[in-house]
Amino acid sequence: MAAPTRTPAPQPIIIAVEPFGGSIRNHSPLLPLVYWDDAAVTRGDGVFETLLLRKGKPCLIDEHLRRFQRSAKLLDLPEPNADDWRKATAMAAEQWAEKTEQDAKLVWTYTRGRPTRDPQQPHPTAWLSVTAIDDAVLRQREEGVKVLSAPRGYVLHTEGEEEGARALPWLKVGAKTLNYATNMAALRWAHDQGYDDVIFTEGEKVLEGATSTVITVRGNKLRTPLAEGILAGTTQAAVFAHAEAQGWNCKAKPMDLEYLCHKADSVWLLSSVRMATRVRRINDVKLAKPDNEAELRALFQEALGA
Amino acid sequence: MAAPTRTPAPQPIIIAVEPFGGSIRNHSPLLPLVYWDDAAVTRGDGVFETLLLRKGKPCLIDEHLRRFQRSAKLLDLPEPNADDWRKATAMAAEQWAEKTEQDAKLVWTYTRGRPTRDPQQPHPTAWLSVTAIDDAVLRQREEGVKVLSAPRGYVLHTEGEEEGARALPWLKVGAKTLNYATNMAALRWAHDQGYDDVIFTEGEKVLEGATSTVITVRGNKLRTPLAEGILAGTTQAAVFAHAEAQGWNCKAKPMDLEYLCHKADSVWLLSSVRMATRVRRINDVKLAKPDNEAELRALFQEALGA
Repeated sequence: MAAPTRTPAPQPIIIAVEPFGGSIRNHSPLLPLVYWDDAAVTRGDGVFETLLLRKGKPCLIDEHLRRFQRSAKLLDLPEPNADDWRKATAMAAEQWAEKTEQDAKLVWTYTRGRPTRDPQQPHPTAWLSVTAIDDAVLRQREEGVKVLSAPRGYVLHTEGEEEGARALPWLKVGAKTLNYATNMAALRWAHDQGYDDVIFTEGEKVLEGATSTVITVRGNKLRTPLAEGILAGTTQAAVFAHAEAQGWNCKAKPMDLEYLCHKADSVWLLSSVRMATRVRRINDVKLAKPDNEAELRALFQEALGA
Repeated sequence: MAAPTRTPAPQPIIIAVEPFGGSIRNHSPLLPLVYWDDAAVTRGDGVFETLLLRKGKPCLIDEHLRRFQRSAKLLDLPEPNADDWRKATAMAAEQWAEKTEQDAKLVWTYTRGRPTRDPQQPHPTAWLSVTAIDDAVLRQREEGVKVLSAPRGYVLHTEGEEEGARALPWLKVGAKTLNYATNMAALRWAHDQGYDDVIFTEGEKVLEGATSTVITVRGNKLRTPLAEGILAGTTQAAVFAHAEAQGWNCKAKPMDLEYLCHKADSVWLLSSVRMATRVRRINDVKLAKPDNEAELRALFQEALGA
């Protein structure tokens, strides 16, 4: 008997979103979309959001829209029109549902666009894509991940540490920009050593995953690292809001690797598409499977409305 | 009498370079080139070089090729084929010379490309572009620039400062990647305050410009900041090599803003296309025009073979 084969992934969907109330239309995924002089290509100058499309619906769309608009504002981009993005997302969800019942990854991208006569008046390039979720991601949802810890390698200035350092308006901390080359390099470095993911640290402090938020569970306590210069996680926020309402004690607190490796009952990486994956190993420390794994998974899924 | 009008800029030239010895061919600048899922677009995951095309010839092509290959290696990309890039650059130079005698900006871009079945075997996307030089850049070559100093906002770890921080292989310090969103934001921040450019600092230490290398002149001494985590400048290296042979004393040394503002006879920002622009003001300190400005300009131009 032949090995069972997975249904082939459906073709991606691309929908171009004109930035100032223009058309919202499908673009063939088989054709190039972006010009050679788009700021996304020449400078990584743009922002994005990744949403989970599950059972025909986009998860946490309000939260993603808020962060998308905040990122755009931090980068001095025109405000993305929420109605247009909702409309494009609904179109995409409907088209995907016609193809398959599989979950999908839905990405919004919004760039500074091509050079304009007046650089203060950018004309953004904007589109969304829907693609099948990688097998590795689906497997990690179920099986968890092995993680290397890695110093982020730089220390952000805190306010007022040095004259002029107070504002640092060009650092754009908190914006989800397209500048992920370093994070991708950290993931390749971990993969080369047989690990699946990375948790960044600063000194003893735990920061975040390469593309995810760290949370820990201990008794009835859910914790996420409190630290400067990490991206606010939409999935983590949704999980904490829901869990708090269910009686869990949820807080952001500074934490160290020792807490992750030896004090927490379980450690999870939260992100939109992979949802929650349990950390099974950090460096050479194996983390035991917690008794309440099924309960936690159910809690996380409910939080995502998924 | 009508105001004199500048000759309209010729159409850009785009030449696609297949990464593994395939075709080298023109692509219409009027059509999109890059796919929506290219790593350059989704992650800023790629490297680039910017060359000056002057009197029909690319300047410092060997130096740019070396840095291009070093950047690619740091990012675990397949080695760019030097012969192919030389051939594409010669084609581009010839095509540009048929259009105009104007200087041009020639950019090589080399990205991780679209997702492949095996992420360890990327299939890069590669092309070069030739475009007319912005009027503002031409003006700054002649008139100099007003510069704001700006703390870079983070401190890179030095080796061995913390356990595990020794290598930091994912930081890719020294690679010229497409992750320039922060530098572009710093330039916008300076422009908003009536300045033309930015010099990054760390504490008292001077680092580099947003897209240029700082050099100073004092007597017969040429200096450039010695500091960690700054990009080795091809133009600065060429200027120092040439000037050293002419009897100047050239060194990289740690320097502070005080030196730039009050000790140096003149301060310059070097980069490929703008070449050398004199810093006329740093924050609220006006820098006087040096007596030897014409001599220095001649020195810089000779160094570039331009």
